[in-house]
Amino acid sequence: MSFDNPEKMKWWGWGLENERYALADPHYFWSFLESKLGPLQQSPRVSSLNDIPVPPARLAQSDLARLKKICGDESVSTENSDRLVHALGKSYLDLLRIRHGRVEAAPDAVIFPENEKQIKALLEFASERGWTIVPFGGGTSVVGGVEPPSVDKPVLTIDLQRLNRVLEIDRASNTARVQSGILGPDLERELNGSGFTLAHYPQSFEFSTLGGWIATRSAGQNSTKYGKIEHMVVSLRIITPTGILDLPTVPADAVGPSLLQCLIGSEGTLGIITQAVVRLHPIPEHRAFATYLFHDFSAGVGAVRDMLQAGLRPAVLRLADPEETAVALRLSKTPRQSFTELLGQWYIRFRGFNLEKSALLLLIFEGPRNLVLVTKRETRRYAKDGVLLGGLPAIKWMKERFRHPYLRDDLLDRSVMVDTVETAAPWEKLPELYKAVRLALSESILDTAPGALVFTHLSHAYPDGASLYFTFMAQQQVGKELEQWQIVKEAATETILKHGGALSHHHGIGSMHKIWLDSYLGPEGLSLLAHLKNKMDPNNIMNPGKLLGS
Amino acid sequence: MSFDNPEKMKWWGWGLENERYALADPHYFWSFLESKLGPLQQSPRVSSLNDIPVPPARLAQSDLARLKKICGDESVSTENSDRLVHALGKSYLDLLRIRHGRVEAAPDAVIFPENEKQIKALLEFASERGWTIVPFGGGTSVVGGVEPPSVDKPVLTIDLQRLNRVLEIDRASNTARVQSGILGPDLERELNGSGFTLAHYPQSFEFSTLGGWIATRSAGQNSTKYGKIEHMVVSLRIITPTGILDLPTVPADAVGPSLLQCLIGSEGTLGIITQAVVRLHPIPEHRAFATYLFHDFSAGVGAVRDMLQAGLRPAVLRLADPEETAVALRLSKTPRQSFTELLGQWYIRFRGFNLEKSALLLLIFEGPRNLVLVTKRETRRYAKDGVLLGGLPAIKWMKERFRHPYLRDDLLDRSVMVDTVETAAPWEKLPELYKAVRLALSESILDTAPGALVFTHLSHAYPDGASLYFTFMAQQQVGKELEQWQIVKEAATETILKHGGALSHHHGIGSMHKIWLDSYLGPEGLSLLAHLKNKMDPNNIMNPGKLLGS
Repeated sequence: MSFDNPEKMKWWGWGLENERYALADPHYFWSFLESKLGPLQQSPRVSSLNDIPVPPARLAQSDLARLKKICGDESVSTENSDRLVHALGKSYLDLLRIRHGRVEAAPDAVIFPENEKQIKALLEFASERGWTIVPFGGGTSVVGGVEPPSVDKPVLTIDLQRLNRVLEIDRASNTARVQSGILGPDLERELNGSGFTLAHYPQSFEFSTLGGWIATRSAGQNSTKYGKIEHMVVSLRIITPTGILDLPTVPADAVGPSLLQCLIGSEGTLGIITQAVVRLHPIPEHRAFATYLFHDFSAGVGAVRDMLQAGLRPAVLRLADPEETAVALRLSKTPRQSFTELLGQWYIRFRGFNLEKSALLLLIFEGPRNLVLVTKRETRRYAKDGVLLGGLPAIKWMKERFRHPYLRDDLLDRSVMVDTVETAAPWEKLPELYKAVRLALSESILDTAPGALVFTHLSHAYPDGASLYFTFMAQQQVGKELEQWQIVKEAATETILKHGGALSHHHGIGSMHKIWLDSYLGPEGLSLLAHLKNKMDPNNIMNPGKLLGS
Repeated sequence: MSFDNPEKMKWWGWGLENERYALADPHYFWSFLESKLGPLQQSPRVSSLNDIPVPPARLAQSDLARLKKICGDESVSTENSDRLVHALGKSYLDLLRIRHGRVEAAPDAVIFPENEKQIKALLEFASERGWTIVPFGGGTSVVGGVEPPSVDKPVLTIDLQRLNRVLEIDRASNTARVQSGILGPDLERELNGSGFTLAHYPQSFEFSTLGGWIATRSAGQNSTKYGKIEHMVVSLRIITPTGILDLPTVPADAVGPSLLQCLIGSEGTLGIITQAVVRLHPIPEHRAFATYLFHDFSAGVGAVRDMLQAGLRPAVLRLADPEETAVALRLSKTPRQSFTELLGQWYIRFRGFNLEKSALLLLIFEGPRNLVLVTKRETRRYAKDGVLLGGLPAIKWMKERFRHPYLRDDLLDRSVMVDTVETAAPWEKLPELYKAVRLALSESILDTAPGALVFTHLSHAYPDGASLYFTFMAQQQVGKELEQWQIVKEAATETILKHGGALSHHHGIGSMHKIWLDSYLGPEGLSLLAHLKNKMDPNNIMNPGKLLGS
């Protein structure tokens, strides 16, 4: 068992120092946080991943031999390091488990198949034995999507990292056929080389895969223009325990219920998505940035709603509430402010803004130059209540956008409970939902901690609604970290559902949200999902306990 | 039995003369047609719908009493006129049947429920008896979607015309909750009154319903900007023989397979869609028109592909091939051409265009004024090979767009076989598919007729492909009209599938296309659809024989 491979060390923040988030002024940030949460203290963690006990693998030599025969010796690992890395995702709970060195279940083997034939054979073998299969893309689930279930029989995690090729680019149709195990950066690098982009940038982009995005209905940060992953997929191929589905590749059809949309979002419970045809975009000819400051969040919400309903489609649209705006300022504040920064602050106050109550809107526009320019110009019509600050904050955000989550490791080092909940709702319900979820988060947190920090942004905007993304932080209740989190999570989720929000807009269901599926979809809906599952995976070998069932 | 109600007389072209298509110069048009198809002769038809024998209704008085108890006396009809009107859709085959006075099957009763409670009770009653239910919107199916099956037990057609209300407009989210039986014009009138539009205009718009559009995955003529109906529906309610599904109303979610997209396109085979929440748009601030002429079809195809891939979204985009351009000119030519028209033709020739080989592109832009203007201007970048003719032809097309199908009655009066086939394909496959389907149509027609007229337009464009819509005409093979059509239909459909086209882009499957479902979706896909059906309608009472099964 060994984590001497630096690539593996990066998991769960055991990275090198340069993998940490670089705060502009650490003292300023941590003092701010302590002023909100109370004093923070160092939290112990296991000093090396090598110290974490992993439950023993339950594979007989003959089974192992059989697996190796199917996939080749190199493709089957029972090493503890591999099994540990595939035992958990990246939720707050997963981070707690790993830091405390308590990993209850790990796959009995991790398999790295090279092709679809091997995957088909693996599923046949597992079906024959009644073993469990957990498909694994980048392992970045924050909803318990890849953890092995506690079952009596062996669990095989199938890591798709070797199915990582762009098979074909159709330059007439602007589509590509891509294997599902490819990582975000590898996919973009290859597409960019041909003049294209998928333009799908979830915050997990660096570590997540195309197949994972499709299986979980992921949304990227540019979704306001390009849509969620379910809008980007033209067709896909899935290998299930009962057969292979290879859907037609057409831009649209009128051929009954959409099988494509039945398979997208299946979270590994129906089969393994091995490849997909996705819509590409030419690398944008032009990009423009804008930032607006509004007197309060609701003025900002009104402005972005009007923009979307008028047909404007910025690629990125992020409206931070006053609390998130304040945190963003603390994150980026440098010990010595530049003359421009001071001038900017003076101007904002001069225009009558109270920075503690203001909401910051970041906009990034992409596309053909003329369309970008007119779209950017048109936003002013709808942002009359706001002040245009220029593009710098949006540019800065774009540069740092994948870095922010790294701060989580430093927060955990200081015993901070930190997590996010997200939803989407119609515009009409958004203001009440925003208020109610903030209240539910604060109140449930304050039952267990002296202070709470809750901040929110609106992103992924649609003409009929938008997503809200809440981040919460508090002192951990030492020894009761899990229970503390559960109380807060339940309070937030139930409030979301009560106010007509989506159970999830882009994180998915996994094992974490499934208890609420019944109240979200209704018993008939849930039963329909179970029926689908029963058809494609009658013996429940595919990722059991995720999405629905046990 | 009586068709003295003028509303009912309008069915199948038995309208008054002003319901016919007004040709600008009838002599010119019919001479042109005879030059292509050979001499045309009058075709006999039954002189009144009252003369058509309708198979007797098979309902016992006690059954009728039970139905009337469920829905009220007024809501249950066993009148032959009602049964005839609900016996067929509007396909070429349906028109043949009605003109020949041969209607093999009719529903035993037509029921006009007022509310969901009655629908639920009707489904329970039918389940109990093992009777068949055919849901009926506007009856405009061209794929055999509403015809009663030949079964031993009674068939009840449920006409949803009384579920015709806009229940609620959400002015913050730009959505409306609408009952499914509302007709296109009624829906638009009501939405327009509140400043909104759905912007869904299928060619059947005047006679088709929201529920019908959703059940068949309909596309409107403005779909290039607004999408197909499946992109417009936020949520829906469906009553099935096993329960009611009422889906959550959120702009997007990540909650497993999309149940919404499982129910859209279900063609009445899973249940009755009773209401839906749809996305609205503000009535466009500005509209602009443009027409381009290209030297040939493939230059036009390249230009529209480039427009779409650059992110331009005209509301209407219709590119006619040279044959369709020629027919359009014949339809609109007046006996005395205006000076402007003559000047236009001189200009086109002066620019080196051969009108017999040219392809005409109509574009209509809608939205906020500045976006419309820049979008229209940007199209020039991609239409460099074409000549801009100004907006008049597009304006003229928009005025007449729902009138063209009325010409079908005059064609049938002259023994012309006239029908359309439609598909969608990726841009990469479009040119070959276009050629092959044209060839398949012409060759199969010429086996049975002295001449063939085949013309095509491209519409419903997407960044990754577009729909092709083929119209064909020939002399009917008298006495063998059905067989003649079948040969042509099969040749075209098999060619479409062979070249990677969609089995249907917006007409649906019904009873007409279902024999090809297996080769389009594959056996696994078909089996998944059957499984869905089996869950929601285990006794196969809902529109059996449509979409799949028998």
